[in-house]
Amino acid sequence: MTKNPIACLLVIGNEVLSGRTQDLNVKFLATRLGEIGIPLREVRIIPDVPATIIATVNECRASFDHVFTTGGIGPTHDDITAECISAAFGVPWEPHPEAWALMEKSYKPGEFNAARQRMATMPRGASLILNSISVAPGFSIGNVHVMAGVPRIMQSMFEHLAPTLAGGPPIISRAVHALALLEGRIAAGLGAVQTEYPELDVGSYPFYRATGNGVALVVKGTDATMAEEAVAKITALIIELGLEPIQGEPPAA
Amino acid sequence: MTKNPIACLLVIGNEVLSGRTQDLNVKFLATRLGEIGIPLREVRIIPDVPATIIATVNECRASFDHVFTTGGIGPTHDDITAECISAAFGVPWEPHPEAWALMEKSYKPGEFNAARQRMATMPRGASLILNSISVAPGFSIGNVHVMAGVPRIMQSMFEHLAPTLAGGPPIISRAVHALALLEGRIAAGLGAVQTEYPELDVGSYPFYRATGNGVALVVKGTDATMAEEAVAKITALIIELGLEPIQGEPPAA
Repeated sequence: MTKNPIACLLVIGNEVLSGRTQDLNVKFLATRLGEIGIPLREVRIIPDVPATIIATVNECRASFDHVFTTGGIGPTHDDITAECISAAFGVPWEPHPEAWALMEKSYKPGEFNAARQRMATMPRGASLILNSISVAPGFSIGNVHVMAGVPRIMQSMFEHLAPTLAGGPPIISRAVHALALLEGRIAAGLGAVQTEYPELDVGSYPFYRATGNGVALVVKGTDATMAEEAVAKITALIIELGLEPIQGEPPAA
Repeated sequence: MTKNPIACLLVIGNEVLSGRTQDLNVKFLATRLGEIGIPLREVRIIPDVPATIIATVNECRASFDHVFTTGGIGPTHDDITAECISAAFGVPWEPHPEAWALMEKSYKPGEFNAARQRMATMPRGASLILNSISVAPGFSIGNVHVMAGVPRIMQSMFEHLAPTLAGGPPIISRAVHALALLEGRIAAGLGAVQTEYPELDVGSYPFYRATGNGVALVVKGTDATMAEEAVAKITALIIELGLEPIQGEPPAA
């Protein structure tokens, strides 16, 4: 069994913690990281507070193979991620020659002001993460990858970065669901399937839809054959309960 | 200045970390906790792994006034939150008499099986959090409040719990936005407003809408007068830039 590298995501920003902004980055990164075989194992949503950012980055970069961050790399006073990452690594926060040149030439003379210059100021030794939407880059230093908070910019940065990340085997997912199924009826059999396949992750997720309630049973792992076997056994459990198994996830709400 | 108690939220579940499920609980709880004056200061999304849940609960209940958890209290093998909370508190995980009676009478004879009995098995000394949707309750022990992961059940549990929580002054929010505004143009003035009002949290959030791009400037704090003053100063900054300030948040995308 190949071991997969694992990832942690830090969502940096008061706007998510205050409820102003619905986070969309966790789902995107969780999905993409699974596809490239670097499963996401923890997310922390933290405020724009330097001591918190620095301590969290240092704790997580020691515990995970990769740490991704979103948010806090714009030009305003609350954009403090780059400065905090520098402090976490104990390196100077200084103009990044390549980022500086890139940004300077994208503004009219006089418009590359102090605020915008902050976006070209990075930890010494950072390598840039470009994107197709805006000129301001993210960056990587060590195993920490610093990206924008705006979803479409973050997504573009991730796609620029992904080819440089060495993942393990992709995490594949197989599902079966049934209407009118109750978790309490299938729980014992499902637990036995999980015990039989400890390398797989067997999950049970009730759903509530206008078209009917039920439960989706989802198997994840890196071995497709094993996942198919487990789903076949769960399918048999559904039939034993007198219900109709439907392969795949239930349709979206 | 009154000090507000602070909260941490633990979202427990592989389904969020795998990208299968879009979390909706963070935004709801962040908003409601702000309204009752217990601002959310950190969120951790963690997997269904006992050692991780136990360590995270113990770390967070020592650092925050309140810890809320969502997920992992159903009847299946991957529902291990109650057992882990018991281990974290060092108390037995045992049938809760009140929860047991409540659930037993809601099932037909013979249907209150071992899996469903797990939902009535809790840390000794827990007090129940009822809800209006399902019979299975959540619970509180110490400063840890354990709720369902399904959003509408979680929301009902929170509303049952909220009257028992002693909050500080509500966190109020005031916003002004402008189309065609660029963060890099207002950053210096905005930073000065933040410096003038250190008790407030001044945020700058670009938006991208079919109706136009721009930036929303948002002021949060417990002092409404101070927040209005800060927004008035930010409004003046927008006018100085030759743009039209629009009070409030931009319309939803």
